[in-house]
Amino acid sequence: MSPLTDRNGLEVLEHDECLRLLESAHLGRIGVTSGALPLIFPVNYRLDGRDLLFRTAVGTKLDVATRGTIVAFEVDDFDPLSHAGWSVVVTGRARRLPSDEALERAARTPVARWAPGPDDSIVAVALDVVSGRRLPSSGVSEG
Amino acid sequence: MSPLTDRNGLEVLEHDECLRLLESAHLGRIGVTSGALPLIFPVNYRLDGRDLLFRTAVGTKLDVATRGTIVAFEVDDFDPLSHAGWSVVVTGRARRLPSDEALERAARTPVARWAPGPDDSIVAVALDVVSGRRLPSSGVSEG
Repeated sequence: MSPLTDRNGLEVLEHDECLRLLESAHLGRIGVTSGALPLIFPVNYRLDGRDLLFRTAVGTKLDVATRGTIVAFEVDDFDPLSHAGWSVVVTGRARRLPSDEALERAARTPVARWAPGPDDSIVAVALDVVSGRRLPSSGVSEG
Repeated sequence: MSPLTDRNGLEVLEHDECLRLLESAHLGRIGVTSGALPLIFPVNYRLDGRDLLFRTAVGTKLDVATRGTIVAFEVDDFDPLSHAGWSVVVTGRARRLPSDEALERAARTPVARWAPGPDDSIVAVALDVVSGRRLPSSGVSEG
């Protein structure tokens, strides 16, 4: 059976494959809308059940997360030699975990911070919508 | 002279260093706001003067770009062993290049597409706001 492709010629990944890729990586990017402007932040994350977990300090990301905002999350891997790569995107509601839940889940799923700063807390992003694409080798042409 | 750090303990990169890092990488992520929701797309890009250039097909990214929308662009590199890494973020207006300018700039700065699909066009993102952070080795702690 040949894989599904989208209108850009990218292979559409099945849900289970997206979850496997989300589990295989630890560095992703959170996209938020702040004051009508899009922002992107790199985060270390872990997949924990139906959530992505990441740590942050009190600040922009956390402020957004604690308001129950919808965020975008993206993780990818791309080989510059073969031009092969994949990307998984999650859209979901973010929430700051209350301290008892944060302790329990961090014990089960250790998650590293991107920044060394203080005021740690853990944000969970629900896997509300998950999609993924794979770019087969030689799919990229120079122009 | 010790480098500046932000409140998260990350080293603040100078503008020239941000430009050098933007020039050194070819895979970035575009963050846009679409229908009040944040979205992220991976793109192959090249730095060309005061713009980042990337190719895309007629679709979400391009639709956004041709409306002169402000986008976020992020590129990073992170070493899972040393925990060292950096991230550069650009905020700027995106515009679809007219075909004569697209031909001229693509000849000077070859830019690969992420997806193999048809309907190529080139989008330029102005370097209106550029910022960067570096995470020194061992700056990340497991929790």
